[in-house]
Order: sequence, then structure tokens, then C-alpha cells
Amino acid sequence: MGAFPFDIQAIDGSARTAVLRTPRGEIRTPAFMPVGTAGAVKALTMDQVRASGADIILGNTVHLMLRPGAERVARLGGLHRFAGWEGPILTDSGGFQVMSLATLTKISEEAAVFASPEDGSRHVLSPERSVAIQADLLGSDIVMQLDECVAWPATETRAAEALRLSARWGARGKAVFGARESQALFGIQQGSTFEALRRESSERLIDTGYDGYAIVGLAVGEGHGAMCEVLDYAPGLLPADRPRYLMGVGKPVDLVEAVARGVDMFDCVLPTRSGRHGQAWTWAGSINLKSARFAEDETPLDPDIACPASRDYSKAYLHHLVKSREILAQVMLSWHNLAFYQALMSAMRKAIAHGRFDAFRSAFHAGLRPTETGD
Amino acid sequence: MGAFPFDIQAIDGSARTAVLRTPRGEIRTPAFMPVGTAGAVKALTMDQVRASGADIILGNTVHLMLRPGAERVARLGGLHRFAGWEGPILTDSGGFQVMSLATLTKISEEAAVFASPEDGSRHVLSPERSVAIQADLLGSDIVMQLDECVAWPATETRAAEALRLSARWGARGKAVFGARESQALFGIQQGSTFEALRRESSERLIDTGYDGYAIVGLAVGEGHGAMCEVLDYAPGLLPADRPRYLMGVGKPVDLVEAVARGVDMFDCVLPTRSGRHGQAWTWAGSINLKSARFAEDETPLDPDIACPASRDYSKAYLHHLVKSREILAQVMLSWHNLAFYQALMSAMRKAIAHGRFDAFRSAFHAGLRPTETGD
Repeated sequence: MGAFPFDIQAIDGSARTAVLRTPRGEIRTPAFMPVGTAGAVKALTMDQVRASGADIILGNTVHLMLRPGAERVARLGGLHRFAGWEGPILTDSGGFQVMSLATLTKISEEAAVFASPEDGSRHVLSPERSVAIQADLLGSDIVMQLDECVAWPATETRAAEALRLSARWGARGKAVFGARESQALFGIQQGSTFEALRRESSERLIDTGYDGYAIVGLAVGEGHGAMCEVLDYAPGLLPADRPRYLMGVGKPVDLVEAVARGVDMFDCVLPTRSGRHGQAWTWAGSINLKSARFAEDETPLDPDIACPASRDYSKAYLHHLVKSREILAQVMLSWHNLAFYQALMSAMRKAIAHGRFDAFRSAFHAGLRPTETGD
Repeated sequence: MGAFPFDIQAIDGSARTAVLRTPRGEIRTPAFMPVGTAGAVKALTMDQVRASGADIILGNTVHLMLRPGAERVARLGGLHRFAGWEGPILTDSGGFQVMSLATLTKISEEAAVFASPEDGSRHVLSPERSVAIQADLLGSDIVMQLDECVAWPATETRAAEALRLSARWGARGKAVFGARESQALFGIQQGSTFEALRRESSERLIDTGYDGYAIVGLAVGEGHGAMCEVLDYAPGLLPADRPRYLMGVGKPVDLVEAVARGVDMFDCVLPTRSGRHGQAWTWAGSINLKSARFAEDETPLDPDIACPASRDYSKAYLHHLVKSREILAQVMLSWHNLAFYQALMSAMRKAIAHGRFDAFRSAFHAGLRPTETGD
């Protein structure tokens, strides 16, 4: 039942904390995975990503197949060696990127055909090819099935078509993936905001059988409230003994509410992207360091986070870097944001382990720093 | 006779290796000072700069007085605390920046008046104000006198006017600087490519008396050969028992030839600027990582340099980062270049200490890695 042991250590309401054990290291859940789209977490060295507290990073099939090319990564020893990251890597399948190149894309039963935004060259991504790129060429630890993503809002008919094609694509990917000891394959639950479709999707996924299960199609425009409504039921449709991964989400408040509803894993470009634009995330919400109110603020972003960017520089200095358009501003704020996200995950893991997740969640919504749990 | 002890440890021909002892730490010479124009060495954290082997960094009076403002830096505890650099800092006086804003600048006996390129606001930089900003507001360890820089080529008349005004400005700066235990003031030798003027400038500087002496106006377009001709005599016109600092120079070959002629200290934006444009410096010369010939080159830039950017990533990965326009490409190549420059300085210090500088210099010109000297 799954290549990697998933040891649930505590359950508090629907929230749980666990360890997913991979040959390349343990992933403590709830986990946040920094996004290393093209083999690099934007603006940061892998040492900085590691120091921020990340157990696993994410890579992107479509970006890497276009540049430097999946076969080239394979010749260079695989993605871990190429990018200098020794821990586990999850690769996304390319489904989302194929959709975001929509005007250039043709989807058939067989495969997605898309044009490179760089040079217009034509590429074919089939479910089998996506799995082969991830598992055999990039050498990913957690491989995602190829799925057809639909833009939001989608009609129920359109969402149903997409989930059924995705289910068939998933089964084809599983057939070539087979059974592996040292790599895992995750299926992807679809169905937009339609409960019946989420249920149908889950049943098909379970029928195929995966090592973990993702939830896709949220935080795409439906709003936090609608997302929470789907998360009231969507994780519970998936096996309780395997990791549940909410793709592409999100803001800290989204993460807290998703964990409360039984989600274990997340990825999002938000902390690095917003960091490149001068925005820092804190327990009291997000702030923009460009604001003149920080010009003489001698306090650091967070003295309790063991990351130099969070702890060792004043907001006045970070404000100066942003105003001066220094590359270091992008480095520092990306780094702090990743460290803050990891601090958030760590605080949630501790709260769940101590049966205090409700108290944590209330404090978080009040903009308070989490209380130490004494462990 | 100089605020900081300057302990010459070995002399080999005209080259020497020494330690300049400051309250904030030792500066091993020949020394290369990374440029932190606006309170940040571009693209790098101070930890990365420190790890590259730098003993001292450089800050810029004009940039910092315009933003965030010298008084603001003072209120925030001075430049060391503001920027998170605990070692010594040398600040340049603003003379060069004032010249490079030339169309906006008016120079009188009293002061330079210039307009901010950012917002057009008018600023006055007098010799006294320059010293006060550096010594009292920024809290610099090594303060540079204000000088009038002339563009190259300059007529002998123009160069003579500039050196005489600079000499008077230097004396005015010295008068407000006074005698200090924990800060040093450096004078600046001018005279373009005219030996008689370099001599006159040096005599005036020695008459005023400084803690160290800079040479300015080289590597400004005259070419490597003409620069070397000036350096055949210019350092020897300055006191042998005080540090000699060649401002704004240069390429590795310039540094080696200047050290051979008795120069002790350098600064230059070249390693960080060229790093931001995909260029890496090596013992065999400079290479551009954008070139397709590195696409599958698994070797690192330099396995012997203890800097992650030099040692731990393949040229293929760095090529990929450059091609992908990742910020990390700029970080990695700036970092490597600074580490390479420090490796070059370290190799020169060792060669001089072992009386083998000529052999080092020959090997360097042949594009060879320096031989280990066994210490």
C-alpha cells in the first residue's frame, strides 16, 4: 500500500501530522514544498532552501523538458545531482503548465500537444511520456500523474470530461510506472467545485491505486470560502492512510484551513514570487517592505525564525534594498518567506502533536504568534 | 604615522605581503575589496561575501548619501550594523561618482555640487562634508579624501588643476578628520599618465600626511600597457611603510601586474558586474557560461576553491541558470568571481611570502593554476 511508509504520528480533528519516509529523507507533514520550477528555487541557493527548513522541493516537468531537456538532465546524472539537492524531489506532471499555454495546446485522448513559448517548437506530452520523464529521466522521488486541468470557472460537463480523461491518463501512467520501491506515484483528484465529481474522481483514483493523492483545481479564482467548502469534503474522499497533497496552494490562511481539513502537503510559488516583489509574510499578515513606514524600523522580520533573512537584518535595511532595486532584496525576502512558511508548518505540526490545533488556528486567525507548546 | 599598524611580512621584488590591523579585523594584503555600493555587494548576502574570503568591503559615499541618506544610516547605528558586515569597511569619497554625473555637476574651490540622478535634487559635497559623512555618519574604518576626478584622456593642464584642487581638498579633509585611533584617512594620488604630476601629487600628499595612499585615474581607458607604465613609478612615489591602494582596478591581470609593482589594495565592480552577465573568471581566463559549449560540461568552475558556487555545481547547471535567466545565475557567478578574486589574492600573498612571486606571475600569464607552495 504505497512505496513510502506514511507514519501518522498524531491526529487532531481532521488534521494530522505524519512522516513520509523516502530513501532520500523524511518529509515531515504537514509539509510545504518550495517550487524549483526550472531546477532552481528562484533567487535562492539550495543551501538557503535547506536552511529554511524544507524537507522536499518541487520541480516542473514541462519547464525542464523544454530547457535544458529531460534527456540532458538524465545524461547529467538526474535532477538531484544537476541542481544540487540531495533530499526528495516531487515533480509535477505538466498538466497545469499545458493548460496555461492553452491557446497553443491541443488535448486529445492520446496526449497533450503544445508549443514551446520560447521557440514555438512542438512537443507531445502523453501520460506515459510524463511518467517516463519524471521517473526515469529526471529521477523524481514523487511522480505526479498527467492530468487535464480545466480553467475556473468550469461547467459541470467540462469538469466531468476533464476528470474522466485524467482518470484514464492516470491509469495509463500507472501501467508504465508499475510497482517501484524507491519512487512513488501520486494520482490527482479533480472535479472543480462539484462534490459528485470529486467523489467520482476519488473512486476512480482509488480503483487505480496510487502511493498518494493530490487535490487540484483549487485556489484558482473561486476564493478562500469556496475553496474551504470543497475542502470540507474533498480530502475525506481520499484514503486516510496515504498523504494528501493540495496542489498550488497557497496563502498561509489557506494552508491552515486545509490542514484543519486533513491535507498533508502543499506547494506554491507565492512565498518566492511575492518575495521578489517586496512582500514579506508574517504572523500578523503580509507587509510590503517598499512602504516608507519601514524606513527606520530597526526590528527584524522575525527574531524567532532561525534564518538570517528573518532574524539578522532590520526592516529598514530590507526597505533600503527594495527601494534600491538590489537583487539582494529579492534574495532576502524570498528566503524569509520560505522560512516563514516552514515556521508555519512546524508550528502546525507541533500543535497537532499536542492536540492543540484548534487553539493554534484561533491564534493564527487573530494574527498572533503561535504559543510554544513546550516540547 | 598611521592609525592602523601595517606589518609588512615579506617583500619580493617590489611586491609585498602585509597585514593591516584594524579594530574590526585584520586585512591581509594584497587585498581585494568587494564593492558594496549601496550597502550591499550586488546579489550576495554578507555571509556569502565573508565566505568568499573577503577581509574588508567597500561602500560608496554618494550612493549612500542619496539613499538611504547618511543621517539615516547614522540613526540606524552606522553602516556596519545597517548592512550586517562586522569587518572593516572602506568608503570612497564620492569623487568618482561626482565625475560620472558630470553633466549635472559643478566643481568649485569650495565643493562639488551635483544633482541626484534619481530625483534631480541638489546636493553639495565638500571635502569636509565627505569626511564627516564617511567618518561620523557611516562610521567607516578607512575614509577616503574627496578628490576631483578627471576623465581620460586629460591634458596635462587639466590633470594638474585637478591634482592641485584635490591636494587642497585633501588637506581640508585632514583638518576635520584630525588624529583618530580607530579610523584611518587615505589620501589619493592623481596625475593621470604624467610622471611629473604623479610626483607633485605624492609630495603634496606626504606633506599633508595620511594613514594610507591611493592611486586613482588608472584603468579608465588608457589600456593595460599604459597603466603598467604609470605603475612602474607611481607606487614608489608613495611611502613604503603605508598601504597603497589602486582604486577601481581591475581585471586579474591588472591586479597581478599592480602587485608586482608594489600595490597592496584593490577594489573593482568587475567580478560582480561580469558575474551578473554570465561571465566567470578562472585561472585560464574568463569564460561566458551562456555558451552552448558548457551545456553538458559536468566540471565545476574550480574544484579547489572552497566556495559552493565554484566547487559544487557543474558548468552545465550554471549554463542552464544563465539561459533560463534565473536570478540564481547572477548570485552564483558573482559569488564564484569574488571567490576566484580572493583565491588570486591568497595565491599572490603565498607566493610573495615564499619569495616565488616571479614564478607565480609567469604561471599566471601562461593561464596555469598556481603551484602550491607547501605551506
